Amino acid sequence: QSSVTLYGLVDASVESVKGNTAGKGTTFNRVSSGNLVTSRLGFKGVEDLGGGLKAKFQLEAAVSADTGASASGGRFFDRAAWVGLASAEAGELRIGRQDSLIGAQIVDAIGAYAYDASVVAVTLGGSTFRRIDNALTYIAPTFVPGLTVSAQYSTAMDSNTANNAETQSVTPGSVIGRGFGFSANFVQGPLSAGASYIQVNSANKAATTGEQENVGLFIYGAYDLGVAKLTAYYNDDSNDGNRRFDGRRLYGINAAVPVATGLTVSGGYGYARNVGTTVSTTGFAANALTGVTGKNAKNDNAGIITLKAQYDLSKRTAAYALFTQVQNSDKANLALVNATTQTADKSSRGLAVGIRHAF
Amino acid sequence: QSSVTLYGLVDASVESVKGNTAGKGTTFNRVSSGNLVTSRLGFKGVEDLGGGLKAKFQLEAAVSADTGASASGGRFFDRAAWVGLASAEAGELRIGRQDSLIGAQIVDAIGAYAYDASVVAVTLGGSTFRRIDNALTYIAPTFVPGLTVSAQYSTAMDSNTANNAETQSVTPGSVIGRGFGFSANFVQGPLSAGASYIQVNSANKAATTGEQENVGLFIYGAYDLGVAKLTAYYNDDSNDGNRRFDGRRLYGINAAVPVATGLTVSGGYGYARNVGTTVSTTGFAANALTGVTGKNAKNDNAGIITLKAQYDLSKRTAAYALFTQVQNSDKANLALVNATTQTADKSSRGLAVGIRHAF
Amino acid sequence: QSSVTLYGLVDASVESVKGNTAGKGTTFNRVSSGNLVTSRLGFKGVEDLGGGLKAKFQLEAAVSADTGASASGGRFFDRAAWVGLASAEAGELRIGRQDSLIGAQIVDAIGAYAYDASVVAVTLGGSTFRRIDNALTYIAPTFVPGLTVSAQYSTAMDSNTANNAETQSVTPGSVIGRGFGFSANFVQGPLSAGASYIQVNSANKAATTGEQENVGLFIYGAYDLGVAKLTAYYNDDSNDGNRRFDGRRLYGINAAVPVATGLTVSGGYGYARNVGTTVSTTGFAANALTGVTGKNAKNDNAGIITLKAQYDLSKRTAAYALFTQVQNSDKANLALVNATTQTADKSSRGLAVGIRHAF
Repeated sequence: QSSVTLYGLVDASVESVKGNTAGKGTTFNRVSSGNLVTSRLGFKGVEDLGGGLKAKFQLEAAVSADTGASASGGRFFDRAAWVGLASAEAGELRIGRQDSLIGAQIVDAIGAYAYDASVVAVTLGGSTFRRIDNALTYIAPTFVPGLTVSAQYSTAMDSNTANNAETQSVTPGSVIGRGFGFSANFVQGPLSAGASYIQVNSANKAATTGEQENVGLFIYGAYDLGVAKLTAYYNDDSNDGNRRFDGRRLYGINAAVPVATGLTVSGGYGYARNVGTTVSTTGFAANALTGVTGKNAKNDNAGIITLKAQYDLSKRTAAYALFTQVQNSDKANLALVNATTQTADKSSRGLAVGIRHAF
Repeated sequence: QSSVTLYGLVDASVESVKGNTAGKGTTFNRVSSGNLVTSRLGFKGVEDLGGGLKAKFQLEAAVSADTGASASGGRFFDRAAWVGLASAEAGELRIGRQDSLIGAQIVDAIGAYAYDASVVAVTLGGSTFRRIDNALTYIAPTFVPGLTVSAQYSTAMDSNTANNAETQSVTPGSVIGRGFGFSANFVQGPLSAGASYIQVNSANKAATTGEQENVGLFIYGAYDLGVAKLTAYYNDDSNDGNRRFDGRRLYGINAAVPVATGLTVSGGYGYARNVGTTVSTTGFAANALTGVTGKNAKNDNAGIITLKAQYDLSKRTAAYALFTQVQNSDKANLALVNATTQTADKSSRGLAVGIRHAF
Repeated sequence: QSSVTLYGLVDASVESVKGNTAGKGTTFNRVSSGNLVTSRLGFKGVEDLGGGLKAKFQLEAAVSADTGASASGGRFFDRAAWVGLASAEAGELRIGRQDSLIGAQIVDAIGAYAYDASVVAVTLGGSTFRRIDNALTYIAPTFVPGLTVSAQYSTAMDSNTANNAETQSVTPGSVIGRGFGFSANFVQGPLSAGASYIQVNSANKAATTGEQENVGLFIYGAYDLGVAKLTAYYNDDSNDGNRRFDGRRLYGINAAVPVATGLTVSGGYGYARNVGTTVSTTGFAANALTGVTGKNAKNDNAGIITLKAQYDLSKRTAAYALFTQVQNSDKANLALVNATTQTADKSSRGLAVGIRHAF
């Protein structure tokens, strides 16, 4: 079939994760899926309609290579399910479930998988709203070389949580789960940079007070020196429409060094602030303070060290090793996503060694 | 692989649906999947066994392009999962989950999607038993040119509802969910016509009294004048083995006009009677009267107006607009499938604009 | 795509199963999927990395052709989800969900489907741990021609049961679900033989007493005389680490006779002992005696007669008939997997006629 491309990726590893529960360290050794990048199976295609117009579609499922499970909650094509029309002059429109604009930018710039700071710190764009339902995405045509500008609107960003936005969207008067986003990406030679934004009505939108909106902002810049690619980034999430950009923050730097043919070693340090404030892990939750007496309190911060080594056996196949350490302050309790519940004021770390094969 | 064809379709749209709940109108604007035709992913193949014999199979999954969800209830290959043998002389036998014969005829003749009268009126063939489990289908060889005659038997038509017929089928003495069907389709030049029938044992089959069988009948005739294709149809559903063909009725006319190259505009009017009588929406439910004092009562009727415009960008890709309006009598409460609960005696309507791309 | 092969199989049949419940015989006639072999859909590939090294992957889903259902519990790729590296010199390593070594040997040697003795007798390798999660499999390079030796370790063999091993694996101190296995397969001309072993920590592992491990052993030998292929086998399952190899036993013989071109008729007799002792049907259950006063008691045995006829319409398509009869002693209650609950001391039997088509 020339009309459809079948593709995918299987990533499996052996990992050892050390967390802290009730004051004592606990280490688990196990098999995991998707620690370098998420295992997946996809179907996509592009049709040339003539006159510069193209039709596109993508259906992409997440796969757990350790158990064979698909994404939870019955959303099989969890990663993508959209159709669109693209024109060089008028831009591109996509309708359906797809990457949030902030999510797409974060995963490209700094990664958004289990051992990455954007996921360990549970950011809106890298974790909670990495992808969104019911979305209309518009990618503007290129008017400045190297610059891509996009806008997104969704009638119900998450249809699969306790605060089911799909159900909310047919409740009279409710606008829970509605939201929008923007992104700008710029690439010129060794330089790349971008900014993106997302805003979603939370479950409190119906109430007269409280945290009514989830708001996320991400900014990054990167430069490839040849001997190393350096990236600096800043992420700011908030549940509060009135106090935007003063909630949970994550900022840091990454460096990727091509040390030999096929071998890349990367290191990063991310600093997360105000992590005692929970940012909507169940979709549209309100803040949940854990003994933190005020915003920007210094005692709920965490440092996240990430190390990666990837050896390419071919363009499609790589062996890899990952290490992430989280150092929590006395009111912070970040941990590797795969770890058990983490006690505050303790460090957590994980080491994974695996294979990633794309097809 | 010459032995398997991968195919599918993604249909996504933006829709505005107005329903009526508790006396006030409520309008929802949202992204939906499958309003023109259901989004799907399929795998099928035909093998020539020699001597005029062929083996066939089909696996087809429904996809929700708005959320990425697959069909509910764990039945991933909701649309088809069967294997069969076909011979030009002896006919074709298919075993597995597949279209009911009445369902296949309805979708071909008048459509069976969210904005179509057969779905708005919740007909047995167009909605409740559009597809059936555990089926044996026999398609007779052509003995009159243009005429196709088929018969179908199922040991348990619906394995996925509260009255799980698959479970019932292993309960001693129970025959709930068993049933059969027939269809005849005739095509000759611009003329096409057909009739089909389905009968299924309801959950009351074990009882000594009551509505023991779901019975559906569909008849249609169509003629393509060139400037317009005209279709007239009649559908009669009943829950009662003793009072067949006097239950819920739907009849109407459709006209499809090719107004320009690639552009087809269609309009239809359906009249639904006795819609206060619920016809087995959960599989095998008995009648549920909503204040309707007798059958054929004039106060539980509804009129359904449908308008469609489809513009083909290519053979595989189309842009479309749909409009359906339901005008309820004072004891009727039909609504667009996607709408919220509808109050009787109020109208409901929907407008969808979208893209359909086949691959 | 040269990088991925899409394949599968649809097997559907009409069957009549007679069981015994509460003293009376009950017969069910119905459509079933996978009675000869399990219906499936798969994606697999091999990439040559140069230097004798290859990358491999496989994703394989079970399909119910009668209802369209996928495997239960959200584990869509129930049959396989792994990635691996293979070298002619160093052997092959696979990571992910895959066949247990004992399961792979049983299905190859004597079959592990609904009408086969290994499934009727609910063996650990043929049924309960036919496949395992979170597994590392090592296939040693060939050092004796015809001999394949493999070893397997899993951090959590079953992530999908009540005693969820995946969850257990992150519970401090718990090793429930962990286990390992071995297999040796030898093929030389008409002779084939093998032995395999599996050991899994049961839900009682955390306790200080009781049946702490599920242990399975399988041995077989086969010789193809040309006029018939003869197979003899022995299987021993136990829940008890202290009393290994004295629990549920199954042994028997099979003969497959190629009676005409394309037509093979097979017959087998299996004798199951101590079947009053339940071997971990829910994953890691302890023994559940049903009035059996001691091990090796003669009153909880059963005989299993299997007959198969398969007619190949092509390499990919076959028609088949299956018959299995189970004769229970007065404390035994084995039955065909698809049958209803079986009363002890009664026979159960099934007959299936169907089509199997591979693609």
